[in-house]
Amino acid sequence: MAVIRLGYVHVRVTDLAQARQHYQETLGMDPVHEEDGRVYLKSWDEDDHHSVVLEEGGVGLVKFGYKVTGDGTLDAIETRARSFGASCERMSKGDNAGVGDGLRVTLPSDHVLELYSDVEYLGTNVGKLNPAPWPRGLRGIGVPRINHALITTEDPALLERFFQDVLAFRPAERLVAGDEDSDLVGSWMYCGDQPHDIAFVKGANGKLHHFAYEVDDWSALLRAGDVMSMDDVPIDFGPARHGITRGGTIYFFDPSGNRNEVFSGGYRTGPDFRPITWTMDQAARGINYTHREIDQAFLEVVT
Amino acid sequence: MAVIRLGYVHVRVTDLAQARQHYQETLGMDPVHEEDGRVYLKSWDEDDHHSVVLEEGGVGLVKFGYKVTGDGTLDAIETRARSFGASCERMSKGDNAGVGDGLRVTLPSDHVLELYSDVEYLGTNVGKLNPAPWPRGLRGIGVPRINHALITTEDPALLERFFQDVLAFRPAERLVAGDEDSDLVGSWMYCGDQPHDIAFVKGANGKLHHFAYEVDDWSALLRAGDVMSMDDVPIDFGPARHGITRGGTIYFFDPSGNRNEVFSGGYRTGPDFRPITWTMDQAARGINYTHREIDQAFLEVVT
Amino acid sequence: MAVIRLGYVHVRVTDLAQARQHYQETLGMDPVHEEDGRVYLKSWDEDDHHSVVLEEGGVGLVKFGYKVTGDGTLDAIETRARSFGASCERMSKGDNAGVGDGLRVTLPSDHVLELYSDVEYLGTNVGKLNPAPWPRGLRGIGVPRINHALITTEDPALLERFFQDVLAFRPAERLVAGDEDSDLVGSWMYCGDQPHDIAFVKGANGKLHHFAYEVDDWSALLRAGDVMSMDDVPIDFGPARHGITRGGTIYFFDPSGNRNEVFSGGYRTGPDFRPITWTMDQAARGINYTHREIDQAFLEVVT
Amino acid sequence: MAVIRLGYVHVRVTDLAQARQHYQETLGMDPVHEEDGRVYLKSWDEDDHHSVVLEEGGVGLVKFGYKVTGDGTLDAIETRARSFGASCERMSKGDNAGVGDGLRVTLPSDHVLELYSDVEYLGTNVGKLNPAPWPRGLRGIGVPRINHALITTEDPALLERFFQDVLAFRPAERLVAGDEDSDLVGSWMYCGDQPHDIAFVKGANGKLHHFAYEVDDWSALLRAGDVMSMDDVPIDFGPARHGITRGGTIYFFDPSGNRNEVFSGGYRTGPDFRPITWTMDQAARGINYTHREIDQAFLEVVT
Repeated sequence: MAVIRLGYVHVRVTDLAQARQHYQETLGMDPVHEEDGRVYLKSWDEDDHHSVVLEEGGVGLVKFGYKVTGDGTLDAIETRARSFGASCERMSKGDNAGVGDGLRVTLPSDHVLELYSDVEYLGTNVGKLNPAPWPRGLRGIGVPRINHALITTEDPALLERFFQDVLAFRPAERLVAGDEDSDLVGSWMYCGDQPHDIAFVKGANGKLHHFAYEVDDWSALLRAGDVMSMDDVPIDFGPARHGITRGGTIYFFDPSGNRNEVFSGGYRTGPDFRPITWTMDQAARGINYTHREIDQAFLEVVT
Repeated sequence: MAVIRLGYVHVRVTDLAQARQHYQETLGMDPVHEEDGRVYLKSWDEDDHHSVVLEEGGVGLVKFGYKVTGDGTLDAIETRARSFGASCERMSKGDNAGVGDGLRVTLPSDHVLELYSDVEYLGTNVGKLNPAPWPRGLRGIGVPRINHALITTEDPALLERFFQDVLAFRPAERLVAGDEDSDLVGSWMYCGDQPHDIAFVKGANGKLHHFAYEVDDWSALLRAGDVMSMDDVPIDFGPARHGITRGGTIYFFDPSGNRNEVFSGGYRTGPDFRPITWTMDQAARGINYTHREIDQAFLEVVT
Repeated sequence: MAVIRLGYVHVRVTDLAQARQHYQETLGMDPVHEEDGRVYLKSWDEDDHHSVVLEEGGVGLVKFGYKVTGDGTLDAIETRARSFGASCERMSKGDNAGVGDGLRVTLPSDHVLELYSDVEYLGTNVGKLNPAPWPRGLRGIGVPRINHALITTEDPALLERFFQDVLAFRPAERLVAGDEDSDLVGSWMYCGDQPHDIAFVKGANGKLHHFAYEVDDWSALLRAGDVMSMDDVPIDFGPARHGITRGGTIYFFDPSGNRNEVFSGGYRTGPDFRPITWTMDQAARGINYTHREIDQAFLEVVT
Repeated sequence: MAVIRLGYVHVRVTDLAQARQHYQETLGMDPVHEEDGRVYLKSWDEDDHHSVVLEEGGVGLVKFGYKVTGDGTLDAIETRARSFGASCERMSKGDNAGVGDGLRVTLPSDHVLELYSDVEYLGTNVGKLNPAPWPRGLRGIGVPRINHALITTEDPALLERFFQDVLAFRPAERLVAGDEDSDLVGSWMYCGDQPHDIAFVKGANGKLHHFAYEVDDWSALLRAGDVMSMDDVPIDFGPARHGITRGGTIYFFDPSGNRNEVFSGGYRTGPDFRPITWTMDQAARGINYTHREIDQAFLEVVT
């Protein structure tokens, strides 16, 4: 049994038309479904029904979904989640457009996590027969796929234990308060062989720091930054190199203030990977390796 | 249980000093051990004892090793391999420097595959505490890590079934002889969430087509090609884009004629990934998307 | 007085509709004028009326134009050209759409060179007021501008002397037959501070080897190669690094067989630059630094 | 007659050993001469004797030198400079190590500008015979060459007129206070065919904002930023895209506080180029196209 990847992020937006403009024209996602004040969108290199849901009214994370393997995985996770003390409920086909039955778990950090294996297959925009490496006619940045989310939690150590014990994630990089053995401030955890599929840092429960799209490489980040400027997208920081994950990054905001990231690079982890430790005195380098300054908005703004 | 990654490639070389010059100075690997006419080398971003073994005398693949998770994985694989009809033997600590007990399987393609979970940990050249994204003073290309091998087999369908049934690999891309449902000519299979950890195409049993190093991105390929030219390394083809895997590539030869690759990019797969099909009429595009010509040496030279 | 840059290339094409598809949709040039079986096109970052003219009927170079400064430059060039023994004639406004009076010179290599300073200004696609770095909605490769042409001549030394004495070009790189002081085989000459604005190699008089578009960088070449493959454009070679000029390159053909190049990079020259010498034994490295093989088509195909 | 390029920048540094460490090990320049508390350095792709002079004691610009063509250029410039009302004096061989006789002009902005054509030729680190595209064994960033300087002046319009009338520079981009015809706030001027060889913005007379090194491309900027972080070099801002010049950039400081830049890209100008106008309301986009915020240190710190 295994968690496969971040499947979708469901966020609130203050104005659906503006949000749609951002995710569709600037980021280049394709709308696949619309109902009840929600727009469902998919990136060009994703197979499943959608990866982002925009819901009008407010701002911030409604919930996110991770896709899991079938064959008893949901049952096993439910058992372990209950044993961990987390509240669970079964979710039903239709609760989310295109998604089948699944499990809804409230994390120790109060975030709502949905787990599912049954989701409508739409396929990528290049197909599965002699495909081109990318589709002509992409709009804006043309993001290929979502990659991870970073959330905040009052108790990072507890949430790390949850992801480890219940979902079999492993930490790739850990930020600690003082020396190497001190309290956990943040953790970047993976379920496959990339540096992170979920991350969290100390902060208020239930909040979203950002969710990220993976782009091809550092050159794609220059072009992404250009598009953001053309479209007057507010930037938090970047282009920059992360120390943590080694990735390239630009952080920016959707029109409602939800933070997005375009991310490139990283390294290969796996079940035998020994975690990297970042100490607080090097945290600025960990976040913005190039500049080594922590941007105040980056620390404070969550939705 | 799971196979984690390609751990090492053990090849014969006609002249150990020349080979060492190539892998150490041009590719930039670090020698970690030497005994009995064998040199063991590690790339800078690899944790385990070694990833390449050079053995003087001849040319071609001696064997390769894939690292697996512990806790019964080897037993489970042995059971399935025997049930598949493959001959297996236990290998002992010390058969390979730095590697513990394991399992040695003869593939249906006559290649020798070693599986192990116990291997000496040396750590990367940047360490695990507030690491830099790369180490200063790299030599030559400065390859970070090995990535996959491509071997040849008389019966691709059989070998695909072996990797699927015994090792739980899955095909990301499949090359078929005619239309979509025709005979399998080649398969690119993964155990994690990258496009391939092993690949094979129809050809003589027991032969190596190439083994590949992963580099950061397309820009790293330009620099790698420059270094190859400075060091008079024979190039097969590239820089080019692969259609299959979407990766960037340069194929080249070590002084003994073993083919190496530097590879960048790709996409994310996973347990739910539906394989891509390439038909023979588009094979040239699949191999060299940019140029769409199949280089004769690429098809014919194996070691 | 000075020559400013290659202004336009006027080529014959066997089929105007096919050629237009290539230059407009694959390369991404904008058609600006059409008359008498000729299509005039401009790249997005060029100011002047056009940089490519396609004329139906046959294949190969009709003529090319270099823009010069005003204020007596044409008179001075005419005097020197006549003194060199080259035949000259005045050309009139309207001989080329958008171009004013000028000078038409027959080179010692039998190519027709037009020189002019008066040309209709259209402006780039990003404008001159707070411009974006590139325009949204580019088609295909989206070439920014033409850069140079390479022609063939029976007498490279004579043509080099012509460009030096009459047009004040200087050689950046020179390919010689044997050792450093032997016969000239090719010359890469500049009028500004880039590595080349014209180049020529030994071959038949009056022929075009290729004309080149400058693109942003090595990453743009990967994308350009992808577009060529999608559009089934025949490739000669590349992506590769040139030894000569250090540029990145892909050589390819328009549907009539005229060779084009996309080119990136280079270095800075200037009036004090001392030329680089390439000896014939290193010519393959000079042309394709990465691969060090001279492609037979590259040597033989001219139009 | 013509100015060829920025030849050298001569700056004061508070601690020569620290400065040397920065320019030699982090930037990768080669020291070529040392005398009287001055270190002269050259970048690997520069031909002339030196391009940076470090002089112990204080901080800020001592003077800078632009190389000109021989044959009466210095006389012509002197005539025009005197006619403009600028004070001039002849400088002598030996005033600057490796540099011959020349002309020293005090700009209307109180900066000392030296003009010379006679300078010792040392050649690049790759030579002029079948050269490699770059030399092995570069240290740190491995900057190829200096590119331009940006200075401050109380009267930008006056200084622009000086550079235009006396030195035949032309403005590529102009920043104005209000609408398109309002007062000049800054000007980016060129003498060759790149976007700028000198630039200046409104500010105190006699001050240096930064001098810049040209690097290959956007990918080189990522690597440069990594090296800066490893060597604890303070960064002002970047990596970022400039709106003005379209270049990629990182601004940073030497240990004495003199601002440096690594710069890539740009476009091609020339004698017929019509200047671009930036209005003050878009100045932030002009400076940092990606982020559109003007960094306070960037505006205020000059040396």
